[in-house]
Amino acid sequence: MRVIELDEILTVLDESAALAAVASGFQRHARGEAEVPPPMHLAFADPPGDCHVKAAAVAGEEVFVLKLASSFSGNCAHGMAANNGFMAVVSAKTGELLALLHDRGQLTDLRTAMAGAIAAHAIAGSRRDTLGVVGTGTQARLQAKWIARHLGCKSVLIWGRHTGRAAALAADLGAQAVVLEELCARADIIATTTPATEPLLTAPMLRPGARIVAVGADSPGKRELDVEILTRARIVVDSRAQCVDHGEAGWAVRAGLVDAASLVELGALLAAPIAFRDEETVVADLTGVAIQDLEIAKSVWKRLTGE
Amino acid sequence: MRVIELDEILTVLDESAALAAVASGFQRHARGEAEVPPPMHLAFADPPGDCHVKAAAVAGEEVFVLKLASSFSGNCAHGMAANNGFMAVVSAKTGELLALLHDRGQLTDLRTAMAGAIAAHAIAGSRRDTLGVVGTGTQARLQAKWIARHLGCKSVLIWGRHTGRAAALAADLGAQAVVLEELCARADIIATTTPATEPLLTAPMLRPGARIVAVGADSPGKRELDVEILTRARIVVDSRAQCVDHGEAGWAVRAGLVDAASLVELGALLAAPIAFRDEETVVADLTGVAIQDLEIAKSVWKRLTGE
Repeated sequence: MRVIELDEILTVLDESAALAAVASGFQRHARGEAEVPPPMHLAFADPPGDCHVKAAAVAGEEVFVLKLASSFSGNCAHGMAANNGFMAVVSAKTGELLALLHDRGQLTDLRTAMAGAIAAHAIAGSRRDTLGVVGTGTQARLQAKWIARHLGCKSVLIWGRHTGRAAALAADLGAQAVVLEELCARADIIATTTPATEPLLTAPMLRPGARIVAVGADSPGKRELDVEILTRARIVVDSRAQCVDHGEAGWAVRAGLVDAASLVELGALLAAPIAFRDEETVVADLTGVAIQDLEIAKSVWKRLTGE
Repeated sequence: MRVIELDEILTVLDESAALAAVASGFQRHARGEAEVPPPMHLAFADPPGDCHVKAAAVAGEEVFVLKLASSFSGNCAHGMAANNGFMAVVSAKTGELLALLHDRGQLTDLRTAMAGAIAAHAIAGSRRDTLGVVGTGTQARLQAKWIARHLGCKSVLIWGRHTGRAAALAADLGAQAVVLEELCARADIIATTTPATEPLLTAPMLRPGARIVAVGADSPGKRELDVEILTRARIVVDSRAQCVDHGEAGWAVRAGLVDAASLVELGALLAAPIAFRDEETVVADLTGVAIQDLEIAKSVWKRLTGE
């Protein structure tokens, strides 16, 4: 059994290969080829934190992956990153633990950003010049980088509840910090990345044909989009089961306003692209699926074993 | 982060302290103090294998535990143990991975045996002389050792589908290999430990006042006891939710023959012992609960850190 620490993981990771692997993983997931048990959530009160456990296996493959990702916001006060975790690469032939990728949550952060870029590309259509990023945390920074790079955006707008943090992130990224209304009015595509539990974006704020990649709602209680946005939009989901359970789409489905059968899985969209009409609002609801963990961990493992 | 290999785990483990911790863990679980998400199962076809993932946290504690336990029966043909796995000890304050207990499934085996001994003690009543063990695998050996020691049994009977293996295990344990009917007729308490998917024990085989500890049924599809045994018995469960979902009790509950509300959780029984009538049949249905993993892993972790 090998323990691979973060610096080695980042050294060997081939980002382009991992992005392609995550995209093809979504297609396998949508075809029902992956075994993805419902994820586990653990919540902590003192100090506040939460933890997600996900596992995925694909029939016939040599390995499967179990991952733990945690977030304790209070860590920052002690000079530690909020996010942490690991991915275990396990033999699907013998059950042996082959490698512990001690990624401290960074592979989870990366595969989440990759999913955002893949989804943005699949729903963007022709208007890709301006990206708006809602939030100032790890995913705000990563989605800004990955979506802008993958779509070739020309400018990035940032909004955050803390204006100081938004200004700092904008300066870092060569982006512009703006108020939320301006962001919604100007952006061709919007990535929402906050842990909000009340909607931040409402339907009247959006321009016709808005494209939104929502990555904040990853556990019960979280939401960034008013339900009126969802009832009017075409909705793409990374996992129908998970998004109905705890994604943005779930709020609309549970209220009886959206039919779960109308949700299009991202993997199916990648396999058979849809030409969305310019004036259509399209939301990609991403809760994070274990197939992404499996693919990025396998991508690292293959490089380590020289496959 | 420390990686603790199996030999060190077994060296530092204090079995008596761990047994007491598991018993008190059951009481915490029954009081609702533990956060125990539904476990994950992954099944593999080629070669056949399965994998359980469990996690538990108790509010206020320093650590929580995520464990993976797998079983690939074909491993034995390659000179490897069928069971494998690890337990991750994670800070409940920061999310940091503190220790990887690379127990290769043996802490899972042990805590399962401890639960059997705890349950047997709680349901045995006064007749404890003869223990009957159904099965010849890892849990047959461990339940024989732990129940016999914890109850002070004077003799142990073994039955297995493979008579050669039953004879070998009996010789190893100083026990007696018998046919199943004789085992049921003579044993004061019976431990069933097989991966059967059809009932092995039927109501007419049992003598009045039979006491059964059933540990085989730990995932959907498995069962060792005919439903008629369950409809006539008092049923103790390690976890009501898990046993209704995939334990022995679940077969009777799903058939509408037993009310889930009548199932007594083992932790509640430990807190308020019941004086079962001599002629009463009592079944302890043990699916394995993450609180057991948390307690045995904490027990090892405390010894390593000198707490």
